Amino acid sequence: MRTSQFFFTTLKEAPADAEVISQKMMLRAGYIKRAAAGIYTWMPLGLRVLRKVENIVREEMNAAGALELLMPAVQPFELWEESGRGPAYGPELLRFKDRHQRDFVIGPTHEEVITDVVRRDVKSYRQLPIHLYQIQTKFRDEIRPRFGVMRGREFLMKDGYSFHTSFDDLVREYGNMYATYSRIFTRLGLKFRAVAADTGSIGGDGSHEFHVLADSGEDDIAFCPDSDYAANVELAEAVAPASPRAVAGKAMEKIATPGKMACADVAAFLAVDIRNIVKTIAVVSEQEDGGKKFALLLLRADHEMNEIKAGKIGALGTFRFASDSEVQETLGCIPGFIGPVAVDREKVAIFADRTVAAMSDFVCGANEAGFHLSGVNFGRDLPEPEVFDIRNVVAGDPSPDGKGTLEICRGIEVGHIFQLRTKYAKALNCAFLDEQGKSQIMEMGCYGIGVSRIVGAAIEQGNDEKGIILPPAIAPFAVCIVPMGYHKSEAVKAAADQLYAELKQLGIDVVLDDRNERPGVMFADMELIGIPHRVVIGERGLKDGQFEYKGRTDAEATMVAQGEIVGMLQGKLCAA
Amino acid sequence: MRTSQFFFTTLKEAPADAEVISQKMMLRAGYIKRAAAGIYTWMPLGLRVLRKVENIVREEMNAAGALELLMPAVQPFELWEESGRGPAYGPELLRFKDRHQRDFVIGPTHEEVITDVVRRDVKSYRQLPIHLYQIQTKFRDEIRPRFGVMRGREFLMKDGYSFHTSFDDLVREYGNMYATYSRIFTRLGLKFRAVAADTGSIGGDGSHEFHVLADSGEDDIAFCPDSDYAANVELAEAVAPASPRAVAGKAMEKIATPGKMACADVAAFLAVDIRNIVKTIAVVSEQEDGGKKFALLLLRADHEMNEIKAGKIGALGTFRFASDSEVQETLGCIPGFIGPVAVDREKVAIFADRTVAAMSDFVCGANEAGFHLSGVNFGRDLPEPEVFDIRNVVAGDPSPDGKGTLEICRGIEVGHIFQLRTKYAKALNCAFLDEQGKSQIMEMGCYGIGVSRIVGAAIEQGNDEKGIILPPAIAPFAVCIVPMGYHKSEAVKAAADQLYAELKQLGIDVVLDDRNERPGVMFADMELIGIPHRVVIGERGLKDGQFEYKGRTDAEATMVAQGEIVGMLQGKLCAA
Repeated sequence: MRTSQFFFTTLKEAPADAEVISQKMMLRAGYIKRAAAGIYTWMPLGLRVLRKVENIVREEMNAAGALELLMPAVQPFELWEESGRGPAYGPELLRFKDRHQRDFVIGPTHEEVITDVVRRDVKSYRQLPIHLYQIQTKFRDEIRPRFGVMRGREFLMKDGYSFHTSFDDLVREYGNMYATYSRIFTRLGLKFRAVAADTGSIGGDGSHEFHVLADSGEDDIAFCPDSDYAANVELAEAVAPASPRAVAGKAMEKIATPGKMACADVAAFLAVDIRNIVKTIAVVSEQEDGGKKFALLLLRADHEMNEIKAGKIGALGTFRFASDSEVQETLGCIPGFIGPVAVDREKVAIFADRTVAAMSDFVCGANEAGFHLSGVNFGRDLPEPEVFDIRNVVAGDPSPDGKGTLEICRGIEVGHIFQLRTKYAKALNCAFLDEQGKSQIMEMGCYGIGVSRIVGAAIEQGNDEKGIILPPAIAPFAVCIVPMGYHKSEAVKAAADQLYAELKQLGIDVVLDDRNERPGVMFADMELIGIPHRVVIGERGLKDGQFEYKGRTDAEATMVAQGEIVGMLQGKLCAA
Repeated sequence: MRTSQFFFTTLKEAPADAEVISQKMMLRAGYIKRAAAGIYTWMPLGLRVLRKVENIVREEMNAAGALELLMPAVQPFELWEESGRGPAYGPELLRFKDRHQRDFVIGPTHEEVITDVVRRDVKSYRQLPIHLYQIQTKFRDEIRPRFGVMRGREFLMKDGYSFHTSFDDLVREYGNMYATYSRIFTRLGLKFRAVAADTGSIGGDGSHEFHVLADSGEDDIAFCPDSDYAANVELAEAVAPASPRAVAGKAMEKIATPGKMACADVAAFLAVDIRNIVKTIAVVSEQEDGGKKFALLLLRADHEMNEIKAGKIGALGTFRFASDSEVQETLGCIPGFIGPVAVDREKVAIFADRTVAAMSDFVCGANEAGFHLSGVNFGRDLPEPEVFDIRNVVAGDPSPDGKGTLEICRGIEVGHIFQLRTKYAKALNCAFLDEQGKSQIMEMGCYGIGVSRIVGAAIEQGNDEKGIILPPAIAPFAVCIVPMGYHKSEAVKAAADQLYAELKQLGIDVVLDDRNERPGVMFADMELIGIPHRVVIGERGLKDGQFEYKGRTDAEATMVAQGEIVGMLQGKLCAA
């Protein structure tokens, strides 16, 4: 492509309402143009990137044995009634009536439609497994669309659905997709992590999210740099400390801590490490017989409680935080000074986090306003507690796979694989006849990739003060040729045209900046729009048979002999 | 692709509500599946065809210098208010309110959005011309969706828009698109015609429709087999007969024709050729001063009046048909017996079709109930009329380009190119600064192709009792290999696998039917889904080193030596 035949619309400044880096850069670089809140036109430059991402996704899905189809964006609402999801979905679901007053939705997702297709066409176990996917524009009426294409209302998604005769076969395909997604993000040239995600009622290993790592990400991910372990912070297991509980060394003592209700204040007041303080959280679970069960959760003071994990304590069940009056009534003390010592274990259950269980000589509330206890020890001053993992992991925690310690980073979710099991197949009666001729409900998996979101996420991961930095696989062009004086020097023009023709011949995605602009403008534009490799051709270099090469993130340009530039670029592009 | 890894869902019978051949065949072949009225899922087989069409369109548009972008399907309604088109569009326009009660439409077309993009980004004549296009799913809430994907509610379109500094430059790009569209339909392998279309108020050469020829088409096209002249029947010029008016040979005579009001009845009753009868149509045009102008239009009795052409008679203006009482009042006679002889030319204007002007000794109404005149001649029995082209052409008429006679065929409109001029640019103030620094409104062209409709139209053009017949460029697979006994004979399996691998290696789109089905089932399926070339491999042939080849439309199969089959297929695919 020659810039003179392209449509460049770079801006000096991003619009004031752009919030995140990728959005600002994409608007400045002319990748996208805003049409309405959360709705964008993909300009020719941005569309090149979007299509490259789309094609890599498609190639890998096909190679994995999935079959592409295309479902309608407009779906009859009856299917959503049949699945029971329609009423539950809320206002993000765009519903409308057609001119005949029939109800439709603009599909934000296609479980119902694909299940309807499969239940009509698949009758026998011999037709299974089948994995069908599409790459399609979707609409979700976000209450607050933001972050440009990362949380837009109209967006491009790959959504795939697999159907199986057994859970085992679903697990096999799930593994296939895990590997396929890993290949996709590797080919895209992105730093990513596959993280175990909380799957709510489905549980187990049934769901992974794929995150592009970027400081601006919305999700916290715990990962082990020495293995491929990664999980959402909320889901990562906090294992027990490696070293056992130290032997008690202090006597228990009641200390006046007037007005010191927050753990940090207590630590400062007593001049003890906050990691020696246990915080006590009072909760109540309503029992089926109408009664209430009161319980105390013990955490190290610097740790965060994880409600999902605590919710899984069988003896506790679904719980809520206790009110001040319930605390007063049960423990005879206001919150802020409560603790686990000398409580009536008939009335109050105590559950300690694994880290707390390994503590000794700790500080906790004394169940008396204005007082704490110090030198407290399990087994001596209070009974051994029941022990659970009830906190979020923190950096430095041991990795659950035993292969090192965890770090925390931020990620942008760009993919999600999910074992749906029989949720939709059951609701829509999507059944097959097994080898014995018996009707069985199919097992289902679903697999999503946010194609347009990837473009935003890639730019969140790759940018600097000059603009966008993209991997060659998805940059709008892999190489740019910037001639100094294309319209003035015959020699420069000839050399530029020849290199351009050679690279094109080799199938390299090259752009020749043949605009009659100042070098500074051309350099700035090519850097802003994120071209990974730049070749500058000038009269001075040409005299010595030299071109100037600079990688997008190189500090300095280097001179390269004319005869070597093509091989060098090929080498760099193959390595990428 | 191996059929065992694909998803074939052929049906014995098409659903009862399928109306046209392409719809029935596409449903039977498993190309598409109905989701709602006029809304279809493109199954993997059909999507292969759709994508092939899409890619040819894209390649040719890119080669023609147009740049692809992607506009949102959801558009803010304000743009439609600005262009003035919103209120006029009617119920086909799907409008909705988002959760913040802002008005949006699902865009059936994108003139407003693209004009908004260009007015924001293009400031100078130096940035023009620019041609931007997209290939996108559109929605139109048809009152009666039908004909499968040919008139669906959700469909895939290529829509392009060009912007120019001058009308001359628009005409240049229009010519470029005319040539590009011709290349596209040629590459698709379809019989088509580019026809001049009526452009309403724009007129001139400002619009062409591209039609795929098929007997089931909705539009009548007049074309000259000896040249590239083609036009909608409504727009084709009916030129004057080649031979001049014959000399009057009969005396005018009044003949009783009791009750014979229809021309055909008069012809039968008088035993004259209907081509010797002139029919008289009474019309009224309301004048600006409130008065009425009464006029008679004269046509040969077997010809059809063309209201669009008649509406262009300047002296007549906008007209309506006269009521019976107006006819009675003006001519003193009931309709059915009216004629042009002896009428008061002060009160009644007479306009004759060109064919009528060349008639002599003709029959017409006598302006007296129950009577006609015969042997009537212009210049002798009534003054020479004003002459216009006011009828539809018929087969056998001279071609307006003087290169032969016209034939009439039916076509399905699949493309439309249009000189919009400044209609939208003016409404949305899409302006540029010219070389003198003066602000000017841009000239615009728009260019559409119904991508999904092409698939339906191609099947309307190509089918037989066995199923779909598609050109290799867009068939779901170009070649099928059908082994007889793949699961029983090692030799057959080996030969089939080897041929499959060889063809794949050559980039030929081949499908190997490795299902364990009876030969008849496999043959029928491959014919139904429209594979152009079939190779059958059986043990008997293999003994003689022979494969059996049959083209989809060949009457008989032929035996081909194993070593020659690949070269033969390559030859056939290159020739296609």
